[in-house]
Order: sequence, then structure tokens, then C-alpha cells
Amino acid sequence: MKINLISDTVTKPTPGMLDAMLSAEVGDDVFKADPTVNALERKVAEMFGMEAALFFPSGTMTNQTAIKLHTRPGDQLICDKYAHVYNYEGGGVSFNSGVSCKLVDGHRGMMTAEQVEAAINPPDFYHSPRTSLVCVENTTNKGGGACWDFRELERIKAVCDKHGLAYHLDAARLWNALVAKGESPEQYGGLFDTISVCLSKGLGCPVGSVLIGSKEMIHKALRIRKILGGGMRQAGYLCAAGIYALDNHRDRLARDHHKAQEIGEVLQGLSYIKIVEPIETNIIIFEINENQMGEDEFVEELKAKDIHLIGMGQGKLRIVTHMDYTDGMHDAFLSLLKKLQVNQ
Amino acid sequence: MKINLISDTVTKPTPGMLDAMLSAEVGDDVFKADPTVNALERKVAEMFGMEAALFFPSGTMTNQTAIKLHTRPGDQLICDKYAHVYNYEGGGVSFNSGVSCKLVDGHRGMMTAEQVEAAINPPDFYHSPRTSLVCVENTTNKGGGACWDFRELERIKAVCDKHGLAYHLDAARLWNALVAKGESPEQYGGLFDTISVCLSKGLGCPVGSVLIGSKEMIHKALRIRKILGGGMRQAGYLCAAGIYALDNHRDRLARDHHKAQEIGEVLQGLSYIKIVEPIETNIIIFEINENQMGEDEFVEELKAKDIHLIGMGQGKLRIVTHMDYTDGMHDAFLSLLKKLQVNQ
Amino acid sequence: MKINLISDTVTKPTPGMLDAMLSAEVGDDVFKADPTVNALERKVAEMFGMEAALFFPSGTMTNQTAIKLHTRPGDQLICDKYAHVYNYEGGGVSFNSGVSCKLVDGHRGMMTAEQVEAAINPPDFYHSPRTSLVCVENTTNKGGGACWDFRELERIKAVCDKHGLAYHLDAARLWNALVAKGESPEQYGGLFDTISVCLSKGLGCPVGSVLIGSKEMIHKALRIRKILGGGMRQAGYLCAAGIYALDNHRDRLARDHHKAQEIGEVLQGLSYIKIVEPIETNIIIFEINENQMGEDEFVEELKAKDIHLIGMGQGKLRIVTHMDYTDGMHDAFLSLLKKLQVNQ
Amino acid sequence: MKINLISDTVTKPTPGMLDAMLSAEVGDDVFKADPTVNALERKVAEMFGMEAALFFPSGTMTNQTAIKLHTRPGDQLICDKYAHVYNYEGGGVSFNSGVSCKLVDGHRGMMTAEQVEAAINPPDFYHSPRTSLVCVENTTNKGGGACWDFRELERIKAVCDKHGLAYHLDAARLWNALVAKGESPEQYGGLFDTISVCLSKGLGCPVGSVLIGSKEMIHKALRIRKILGGGMRQAGYLCAAGIYALDNHRDRLARDHHKAQEIGEVLQGLSYIKIVEPIETNIIIFEINENQMGEDEFVEELKAKDIHLIGMGQGKLRIVTHMDYTDGMHDAFLSLLKKLQVNQ
Repeated sequence: MKINLISDTVTKPTPGMLDAMLSAEVGDDVFKADPTVNALERKVAEMFGMEAALFFPSGTMTNQTAIKLHTRPGDQLICDKYAHVYNYEGGGVSFNSGVSCKLVDGHRGMMTAEQVEAAINPPDFYHSPRTSLVCVENTTNKGGGACWDFRELERIKAVCDKHGLAYHLDAARLWNALVAKGESPEQYGGLFDTISVCLSKGLGCPVGSVLIGSKEMIHKALRIRKILGGGMRQAGYLCAAGIYALDNHRDRLARDHHKAQEIGEVLQGLSYIKIVEPIETNIIIFEINENQMGEDEFVEELKAKDIHLIGMGQGKLRIVTHMDYTDGMHDAFLSLLKKLQVNQ
Repeated sequence: MKINLISDTVTKPTPGMLDAMLSAEVGDDVFKADPTVNALERKVAEMFGMEAALFFPSGTMTNQTAIKLHTRPGDQLICDKYAHVYNYEGGGVSFNSGVSCKLVDGHRGMMTAEQVEAAINPPDFYHSPRTSLVCVENTTNKGGGACWDFRELERIKAVCDKHGLAYHLDAARLWNALVAKGESPEQYGGLFDTISVCLSKGLGCPVGSVLIGSKEMIHKALRIRKILGGGMRQAGYLCAAGIYALDNHRDRLARDHHKAQEIGEVLQGLSYIKIVEPIETNIIIFEINENQMGEDEFVEELKAKDIHLIGMGQGKLRIVTHMDYTDGMHDAFLSLLKKLQVNQ
Repeated sequence: MKINLISDTVTKPTPGMLDAMLSAEVGDDVFKADPTVNALERKVAEMFGMEAALFFPSGTMTNQTAIKLHTRPGDQLICDKYAHVYNYEGGGVSFNSGVSCKLVDGHRGMMTAEQVEAAINPPDFYHSPRTSLVCVENTTNKGGGACWDFRELERIKAVCDKHGLAYHLDAARLWNALVAKGESPEQYGGLFDTISVCLSKGLGCPVGSVLIGSKEMIHKALRIRKILGGGMRQAGYLCAAGIYALDNHRDRLARDHHKAQEIGEVLQGLSYIKIVEPIETNIIIFEINENQMGEDEFVEELKAKDIHLIGMGQGKLRIVTHMDYTDGMHDAFLSLLKKLQVNQ
Repeated sequence: MKINLISDTVTKPTPGMLDAMLSAEVGDDVFKADPTVNALERKVAEMFGMEAALFFPSGTMTNQTAIKLHTRPGDQLICDKYAHVYNYEGGGVSFNSGVSCKLVDGHRGMMTAEQVEAAINPPDFYHSPRTSLVCVENTTNKGGGACWDFRELERIKAVCDKHGLAYHLDAARLWNALVAKGESPEQYGGLFDTISVCLSKGLGCPVGSVLIGSKEMIHKALRIRKILGGGMRQAGYLCAAGIYALDNHRDRLARDHHKAQEIGEVLQGLSYIKIVEPIETNIIIFEINENQMGEDEFVEELKAKDIHLIGMGQGKLRIVTHMDYTDGMHDAFLSLLKKLQVNQ
């Protein structure tokens, strides 16, 4: 039995989702004539209480488009040093938008409003880039699935307003935060200029992300999506999966979180595990005592048992639970983990 | 009965294609672990006798990626004034690659080798951009589905070799040219550095294009696709449609061409039609005598009868036949067209 | 005696100009603390009746900055096919601004308002780039020093206003047009959003161009100049030359024009010269009958006599008169030219 | 008596330098026909034992051009968090090259080879940008004029070679380091792929920087300089100042360093000065005890006495000594500084 804990992006559609896909009514979305795409976009916009939404082939493209919308070449955005937009989008911030990142040394991927304010360049000192945007990520990927305190997000919003900065939320795994913290999409919709949510992580869709914002923003986003090559034809098949997931797969994220907690407890008991970071959602980041076992060694050891996870460098490892990580897999993994001896 | 002749992109999957999609084995293609994506890429590469291929969400993204691969910012590419990359990709050549286009005044979207050579900037005169790439399109979209003489493409290749230029083929509708001219994909694979083929036009897939080239090129393309946001997860559903289409929908393009011919003959007989451009594949471009009937008027007249086509400006109109334009629709359209009177 | 007719950029400062340079009061212009730079900027702005001006190291940088100011990446600007910004700025439009050019097939580098309007892309058809700027050049360099009819410039302004486009004047050689047509800088200042004038062509300064516009535009331009690396320290030495030239070298351009006329008349009389284009200012473009003498051959023939001019390709040649082309040189050149025999 | 300690860029040419400028033989450098420009470029290249050099209007443009030469859009360069290219070039790294910076947390603007190596992204993990360049700065501006240990620069070179990275030196104030450490330009020329030196700081020229590298690099740099708008015409006037400065103003930098030392000693004795950073060259960075006196207050206090320096934020201040800071000014400043009382 293969157990894939590399990411929550590896899930495959359930039979119900596949049925929804198969029976989707489609059209040519490049002409905005796909009824299922339009329905998903409307549904997501309404869910967040925002005016409009646009479907994209990836979360990288929603983030990159949002950054483009809010900046001009030469500008600088402020984000945490762990931010996905800085670390894992191939340098796209600079490639697509000509923009640089001012990295804030936050806690588990989360900054304080004070840190954000201190990172703003003086607007008339033209030697430094013009600061025009703040990007936050919730939950934080590299920060171990941490959930923001919503009040801090509000305090950062106040800083943005004071300094005339745009405010974007990389909400790839916001669904997990909403469940973990008992929050609502509307809360977020009321705070941010643009939000990018992902359908193909915890929600289990095969493909797709959605950018949400004002009508004007989304109208401009359509042009940028075209330029980047994100316009797809009968995308309704993918969006049907999205609609199904929004209706059926949100509450079940609590189960992924619960499993992550249980894995964390077992890891904590292992002598050669140095630190298990706090677990709030479906991501577990832990540090191995490299004197006792190497990071790669641990990965290989488990791989030999067809259990897959990834090292993050410098002794850190990551496990992600998801819809396709079944109860049976969970039991098997936990019991194996308990027995895992250090070979020395 | 709605008859949509706006583009061959409006087609919906056949039951057979949907079956293939539903039963696709999938994985996470961002980790290159989707077997169906991999199978499609292998199949297309082999079909063209090239080393490697990569699946993309759109033809715009395959073209844009190819242009990026072959150029550096500030460079210039040579293409016909009708080229899709110049006219219909949202200015992406300059946005994504910082590249300008030297437009050649060709015939129906096709240039001669002499025109290409004359358009090359002197390499050491650094006031003008460095010429680094030649892009051709077969069939030509704005040129009315015209097919290149393969010998001219070979002569342009010789110019590219002589001057050290890369050579890219926008093969969005090459499938139509292959059928119309009795050519093989291998011919093209042997001539070009990169080729971008589309699955969602005449072949009838919902989404997707494929970039083909050397291993090294495609390896670099993977990084660019990531940056542009074209990495999708379980894209195998879309690729299953592609495999099905390559196996089942190529020969039937001849039927679309035949219908286009028949439409052209009827148009030719109408008094208020000034010119019907030569019809070689599935695109019909014709010019209306605007003294007798306005371009918009003609479009509206047909729209009132639920027949849809698009005006191209300055009295030109375009009709595109495709898989979902059935024999029944064809008969209905032809008989209606014959009766269409000028209201004056 | 070397006679250099390659360009009017080859001139060296007169003793008076050198004196002005030597006695300039300077400061650090990066801190906007150079009084001579500030004085030149004020003088030029006032001359054109515009709010503000900024000194730059080159005309390419003023044009490139203006284009950046008026566009966003992906946009398209409209210009004549002969435009300096398209042909001779190294592809900078796309490199610096991510912008493409829609080339208009004008007459001697000059377009009609109708041509400009027809070149605007439909604003909501996001397949084509967003048109945001019209650039004109007066006099036209590649067009042979032709001067625009000011009424046509006004008509193009009306098109810009109607469609919400910015309007930039590449006024590298406007000084020549003002003298030739009896026009005033204020006329131009009232019409354009930005104007870039050059000091180092007909006016005879060693280095420098000035961008003129509204306060807001010039404030933004300062940031772009910094990014491109155009901020210089004690630039007052260069600006002192500019002030001197504006005070002393404008009227004398008529003499350059007169000499150009006389050269044109002699060329017209030579059997192997096919066409001499109309001469309005200090540029002479003529075409050689390549059956009788090759373009390169003609250039080499004169070079052997230490007379220098440049070929423009396809049998066209260019001569430019200027401040350092003395009366003595003129007499010598004319008499030599008359004697120039075809060697066959 | 105005005492300007804001920067060493504020200096004005000496009579000797002005004489050299006035008597310069010039030509049109855009055609590479200015003998004085050519002579300066040759002189600098030879001084560093490198093949070729190119004159630019600013140090920002030399750095930006070098970064462009060594990278492709989307790449990442490694530099210290204090680097001029990241902090003070207006975001040009991303604007001009589409490149991002990986910031290293070094000491006084200087990194270790180990830090550099740890900052390299894995070459095949295409989620993160491709690392292609390491930039170092000597002396460090924001680091307080600190001089690198040359052996560390050699160790970083070994890291570059091992990982196939280019290596650029921002040598804006290298002249100061050479004098302070008794090093030679050849040492540096042998280590780096490109070096950008500045003439308008400690050396006292009005305008100009020089990029040094291989013939191939400088040939490519010419095209980039053109695109950025850095091509100037009779630039020989500026280069004559450069030649004069290289011959006459290098050794005297020791005097600026000595004065900086003496200022530092006085500052150290003031009760309200918290820290004076080590002084190696002509830059003094010190921190004020903001409980006793505000940073702005201190600046204003001195300004009232016509002594000018700049605050760097968060209680830090900077003083820079230079050629125009005379012995008389020095005595006056020191005695005033000693008397400067805290007003509380």
C-alpha cells in the first residue's frame, strides 16, 4: 500500500466528483461561454462576498496575476521570508511583474503589523523601490500550516490603508484555516483587495485556482490571464469538480487535521526527532536530530516501505495529510512510525 | 438549432472522448507523476520524431514559452503581419519576453524566404534589436486557413541556419494542413526547433496544447511553464482527451474542409459578397460589399436565426467549420444562406 | 580636410560653449542640487510652456522613459514604421516597457489621424494588446528630416483624446522643424503629454536630452531615470552647454538647411542618382541607381576623399549637415560632388 | 562655511581636472569615435588586467548592465542584505533584468563563502528561481565603508566556480579599499567576471562609471547600454576628468580615511553616541542614543550650523569624508563636534 504524504495536491477525484465532471455542461470559456465555469466563479465570489472571480489553471497563476494587478515594474511587495510567492513560484514575481520582495522575518510565515510598517520604503526616496503591495498567506505552507490570528490581518490592513498599499491573500489553503479556526470566507472577502483560493489541494480537485476581487480587478485579470496563457476552452469539466468540492469537501478537512495531530504525537515520542512544530491544520513540519539520523536517510527508510514524504533541507521534513490518506493508511503509518528504529 | 461557426474551439467532447477522460489514470503532473500526461507527451513527441514534449493549458502559453526559450529581452522575432503571436496573444511577446516583432508583409499569412532574410537586422548594428527567431504559423488563422508550401518552409529554414536564428512553428491547426496536403508530422519535426500543436481546435479536446522540441528545450520549458503558472496537477483527464483525439479525430478533418468548400461555393454565388478567399482547410474568410450590406448587419441577420459567426473588421467575416458542425446543420445553413436576401 | 556628414551628432562644442561649460556652477544632481541642471530644466520647461523638465544622458533614455510613463507592460503604442523608437533604440520599447509597436505605413515617417485611429485595438478585445500611446517624431529621421503639418498633429491629438491615449513627441530634431516652419515651442508644449528634445544634435552640445511634461509626469520620470541608471552627479557641465546652445545655436540651423538644399541640387544633377527625397531641414536621403554604382561603392569612393556619409541599405544613402560642416567644407564637397564620375 | 558630509559624490572638479576636461579631444562615442573615452576605457581595463571596459553615465547603470549580462529573467542573484544593488538602485534588478535577490545576513555588508553556498537554490528544483550570479560590494556603503578580506572573496569565487555562477564586483568605492588595504586592481581583475568602478565618488569626477570585463562581455554590454539609454555623444569631456583622477586622486584617499578616523574618535567621546562602527575608509556610521537625542534632531542641529550629514533611520547616521572636505573644514567640524551639547 503506497502512502503518499508529499502534498495534498496528489489527491484524485472521488467517484462523486468524477460524476459531476462527466455531466458538466460546458462551452468555450475564452469567449466566457462556459456555464459551469461561470457558475463556479459566481459561487466563489458570493461565498467571499466579493464582486467577481476568475478561474485559473494554477495557484501560481492566480498569485502572479494578483501581483501584476497591484504593482508596476520596479515596485516592491512585502511578504514573509517563507512566502510561497517568493520561494516557490519560480521567481515569477520578478519575471512576470518586474517586482522585488522585501522579506520580513516573521514567525512561522506570519508577520506583525509593526514589521510590515517598518518594511515600507519611504515613498519619496526614489533610490529604493516603491512599496505597493502586501502579500500574506493563510495557512502558511513553509510555516507548517499555521493559521493567522485574524486580528493581526486586520491590523495589517490598517497599515495598508494608511500607506496606500494593496493587500493580497494567498489563500491556497485558506479552507483549512476556516475549518481550524471556525472562520468564514466573508471575513476575508471584506479585508483583502484580492484573494486566490486553490481547489486542487485539500479540496481534492484535479486542477484549478480562483482569483477573487472587485469587478474592475477581475476584468483586468482576464487580460493578464490571456497574456500568461491561462485561457482555457471547455474548462467546465475542471470547474464542475470545483463546485462539487466546495459543496462536499470542506468540512471533511477537520479529519485531515485530526490525523496530522495524531502523527505529530507519535513523532514527538521518537527519540531522534528534535522538534515537531505546532500543528494547526494538515501540515506537519519536524526536525530530525541529524546526529542520530540524516534527513535523507529518514526519507529513504520510509520510501523503502512505500511511504513518501519530502525533506525541506537542513534537517527539516514535511508531512501533509489529505483526502486520499485513508484511515487504513493512517493506522498503518502510525504503527510503523512507532516501530521505526534508528539504525546506528 | 444553434449553429456556431465562430471558431473550431467551441467543440465539446464526444461520448467516446468523455469515456476516455473518465477512465484516465492520473497523478500529480507538477511532480511529473501523471501517467496519462506523460503518455500524451511521449505520443506527440514520437509522432513528430522529436525528443520531448510538454503539455500546456493553452496554445498561447506554448507559443509564449517557445518565444521565451529562443530569445533574450530586447531581441526581435520575424513573423508575418497576420501572425497569431503578434495579433492575438495579448501583447505577450513583449510582456513575457521583452521581445518585439518585425512584421513581414506576406501573402495570406505566409512569407517567402527572401522576405525573411530581408527582415533580419544587421547583427553588429546595436541600434536595432538583435534578430533571433523566425515564427511561422500553419495553417494561418488570419490568413484564412491557408497551408504553406513545405518547400518554402525549408527555404526559410536555410535562412535561419545561415543567420543563426531559431525557428518556431505555431502549429495550432497543423492537423488541418497535414490532412489537406497529405503531409506527415515527421516532416515538420525534422525542420523546426520547436512546434506548438493544439488539441482543442479541430481535434475537439476541451483544453490543451503541446510544445515539442529537444530534451534540453523541453527541460527549460518546464521552468518557464512553472513561472507562467501553467503547471497543473491531475491534468491527465485533459490529456486522455488528447490521446483519444489523436487516435480518432485526425482523419475526419477532411469532412470539415469539404463543408467549408461547399459553404464557400454558396457564398460565391451571393451578389453582395465581394470576395471569398481561397479555401484550403476549415476556415472561410470572405468580404462583403458594404454598399449593399454592412458587416455587422450580416452578422446580426444570421444571429437572429441562431447562426453565429464573427466579423473581422473592414467588411471581412470569418466562418470556421468543426466537429460539432453536423451534416444537418450544414444542410440547414446552406439552404438558409442561399435564401439570404439583402434588405435594402 | 575631413568632412563628416554621417550625423549632426558629431559636432564638438564651440569655444563659447566650452567657456560656458568651464564656468558652470555645479552640484550633485542626484540630490537635485546642481544649479545649472536645474536652470536648464526650468528654461526648457518654460520655453515649451510646460510645467517641468528633466535632463537625461541621451535621447534614447528620454523616449524610453516617456514610453514607460504612459504604458503598462503588454500595451501597444502606435507609431510610423520609420519611428526612431521602433528602429533605433535597440528594442528598448519591449525591453524596458514590455510594450509592442503597431506600425503605421505613413509617408516619410508621418501618419494621418485616420491611420492612427484605424490602428487602435478595440479596448475590450483582450486578445490584442491594449493601445495606450501614440508616438510621433518631428522632424523624422528615417523620413529624411521631414516636418509635420502641425494641423495633422492636432488632428491626431483629437484622436488621442477621443480614445484616451497618451501622446508623446520625439522631438530630437524639433529645433530644425521650428526654424524651417516658423513654429514655436509653445505650440508643441500645448499639444503633447510629453516631449523629448535633444541638445546634442543640431544644437551642438556634447551630451544630453531633456524630457518635458507635467509636474506629476516628471516626478515619476525621476524614479525611472534612476532605475535605468541615468542619474548623473555634477551634470551641470553638460547642462551649461545646453543653456548656451539654446541661447546661441537655434537660429543658425537655417544655414544647415540651406546647405542641405544646395547639396540636394547637385545630387539631383548626377546621372546615377535615382531619387533625391524632398529636403526640408538638414537631412538628405537619396537613392542611387545601383545598376550604375553600388551604395557601398559610392560610400567608399567618398571615404577615399575623407568625406563620410552612411548607407541606409537597399541603395539609399543619407547626408546630414550640421554646425561643424563649415562653408569651406561645403564648397569643397559641392565641387568634388559635381566632378564625381561613375567608374564603369 | 558650508560643510557637506552627505556623500563623497558631492565633490567638484579641481582646477587641474577642469583643465584636463577643457582640453580633451572628443568625438562621437555612440560611433565609438571619441578618443578620450577610448583612452579611459583602455586605461581602466589595463589597470585591472582585464580585456575591455565601457564608460557609463552612472554606477547604477554599470551594475544593472552587469546583472543583465549574467542572468536571464526569473533568475536569482545572491548578495548581502546591505547591497547597493538591492537597496539603492530603485528596484532595477527586477525592473531591468526580471531577477530577484536572495539576501544573505552578512556582517557589515560582507558574506562568508559558506553563507553564499547555502543561499544557492537546487538547480533542478524549478519551483525556486535559478541562481546564476553572486554580487559583492567593496567597500560596502551601507556597511560603513568596510573592506573585504581578499581571501574571503577568493573563497566565494571557488563557490561560484563549483556551482557555475557568475561573479560581479560593485567596486564603486574599491579605490578606497585598495588604498586602505594596500591591494592592487589586478588582484580584483583576476577574480571577477565583471567589475564596476565609479569615478564620481572618492576620485572626484563630475560624472561616470566604468564596467570592466572580457571582450565578449563588454561587446554585449554595449548593446545593453544602448537599450538603457546610456550611449552619450562627446563623452570625452567626462572621461578626461576620469583619466586625470586616476592619475592624481587615488593616493590622496588616505587623507579622507585619516579624517574619518579622527571624526570617529571625537564621536566616540560624546556621551549620547551609542556606537561608532569600525572605520576603515571614508565612511563613518554611528548610532545615537535616542533617549538623549533624536536622529533627526542631531541632523537639524548640525544643519543649523551649515554642516550636512544624513540619517539612515532607526537612530543611525552617516558621515562621508571626501576631496572637498578640506583641512580647514575638518578642524572646524571637530571643534564644533566636541562642543556639541545635548539639549535636554
